[in-house]
Amino acid sequence: MKLISYRSGDMQGIGVMVDHERFISLRRLIPDLPNDLRFLLDQGKATLQRIAEAIVGNEGDMRIDQVQLDPVIPEPHATWALALNFQMHIDETGLTTSPDYPQIFMRMPISVVGHNEPLWCPNPAIAKIFDYEGELAVIIGRPGRHIPVERALEFVAGYSCYNEGSVRNFQGHNRQFGLGKNFERSGSFGPWLMTADEFGDPKQHRVITRLNGVEKQNESLDQMLFSVEQVIHYLSTGYTLQPGDVIVMGTPGALKKPADYVLEPYDSPKNPGRTHMKPGDVCEVEVTGLGILSNLIVADPTEL
Amino acid sequence: MKLISYRSGDMQGIGVMVDHERFISLRRLIPDLPNDLRFLLDQGKATLQRIAEAIVGNEGDMRIDQVQLDPVIPEPHATWALALNFQMHIDETGLTTSPDYPQIFMRMPISVVGHNEPLWCPNPAIAKIFDYEGELAVIIGRPGRHIPVERALEFVAGYSCYNEGSVRNFQGHNRQFGLGKNFERSGSFGPWLMTADEFGDPKQHRVITRLNGVEKQNESLDQMLFSVEQVIHYLSTGYTLQPGDVIVMGTPGALKKPADYVLEPYDSPKNPGRTHMKPGDVCEVEVTGLGILSNLIVADPTEL
Repeated sequence: MKLISYRSGDMQGIGVMVDHERFISLRRLIPDLPNDLRFLLDQGKATLQRIAEAIVGNEGDMRIDQVQLDPVIPEPHATWALALNFQMHIDETGLTTSPDYPQIFMRMPISVVGHNEPLWCPNPAIAKIFDYEGELAVIIGRPGRHIPVERALEFVAGYSCYNEGSVRNFQGHNRQFGLGKNFERSGSFGPWLMTADEFGDPKQHRVITRLNGVEKQNESLDQMLFSVEQVIHYLSTGYTLQPGDVIVMGTPGALKKPADYVLEPYDSPKNPGRTHMKPGDVCEVEVTGLGILSNLIVADPTEL
Repeated sequence: MKLISYRSGDMQGIGVMVDHERFISLRRLIPDLPNDLRFLLDQGKATLQRIAEAIVGNEGDMRIDQVQLDPVIPEPHATWALALNFQMHIDETGLTTSPDYPQIFMRMPISVVGHNEPLWCPNPAIAKIFDYEGELAVIIGRPGRHIPVERALEFVAGYSCYNEGSVRNFQGHNRQFGLGKNFERSGSFGPWLMTADEFGDPKQHRVITRLNGVEKQNESLDQMLFSVEQVIHYLSTGYTLQPGDVIVMGTPGALKKPADYVLEPYDSPKNPGRTHMKPGDVCEVEVTGLGILSNLIVADPTEL
């Protein structure tokens, strides 16, 4: 199943996709269910099973272009994000990280939008470098503490795509990333949660990032230094994972440009394959077999 | 006014303290108000004014020992915490931090409990060093972006005490603090929100931490390197602060012990004034003029 979180006027809802455009509104089909995907996951597998049975033969009553898509989980209890989880990205940044423990920071809800919603490029008077980071998002399905690596995937509800958009100079203001990973509408999360049974083994998929149609990142998820299972185990040593918690698995490095490529103003001389985002760009993050998360970049409209 | 968040059975509520023990249940007094303090703050100053008028002459209908106190804001949209915001703490740790920008990380709700609720000391098989950090908490009252330093305090609803409990070896696992600042029930936030009009200027107050009645930290809040106003301004350059957002202002250093003091097993040889927390301890964080946040430390009861 592919589940979306959407908004129609002031009304929040959950939908089940029937293809890449049409969906079934759960509000209409099963009115007693929660309208927030986090609280639906709270009800456990029986509810997902109930939905799977109720949608059989249903061809959908709405289209995603009729609504506003929210982040897959609009307000998770926690969003954990990994830094430097691909050797290719470690090499291009020249940074170091522990080989023994994942490097983890957090994002807050207002920093993330849904599929097809505009991302805000910071006002250049405030910050000049705004980068995409295409990543796999893991959504937790049931509470768990002290979860062994071998059983970790039992706690996953599903997967999605994440653009872990980053404001580089704020990220470098001090030792903790803090605000640099949390600018308003700097990241995106969608288009949908694909349930774990349908997605299968994360290592069999790739993450691909395109800017204005040009491939910028394309890497197999078997290249992650810490696997989904290992990170779930690690986090669960410290707290009881909550349904709807999100783990964002880190971004691979940039693809190299041809040798004769001439740097454009927004290109990074340090990582020639990397291009910063600017207003007017369209950034896509694809997880193969899952779908494509697409966002237009616009200038932050707030007045200084 | 002093506002608490509490739970009685499955019921969530907000109370107004009439002294340090008795409170008025808003659920009974004004039933149409939200029962979550974050959503009450969302309604703006007019609602606080309405409450102030409604409680005149009311002597309280409940006592805090009849209920379970939640963190002042049970599930904030974001909790920002400052590292190394007192010179005394920088000196004792030997760490460095930018003089130009605050060092900021995040905490998630499950890592924090309310006043009088037990904190969980990690199982020693998982982590051995569990430290108190007494701090001032700032609670945002209304949305704001690009807030000038001079106007920053207008966006504060009130203040509280925070024990920013930290699991040191996890904090040191990698460059970002991540899980080390987010163990389950490792921190506390309370006892209440004191409104800004009643609290006055943060710089006129002190933060004091006691372990089993012995003073461990005692410092004036005018020693903060980045002030409340500066941190609000800084965060608002990146996003629209949300009502109920929490900013935890960093911890001062430890008081020095007498020269003839003999180190106990849980004392830190590096910072002789600092003592780690262990099951059976009681830790108090006082912000002068506001109140005392007290928590018993118990062993994490979850099975490995």
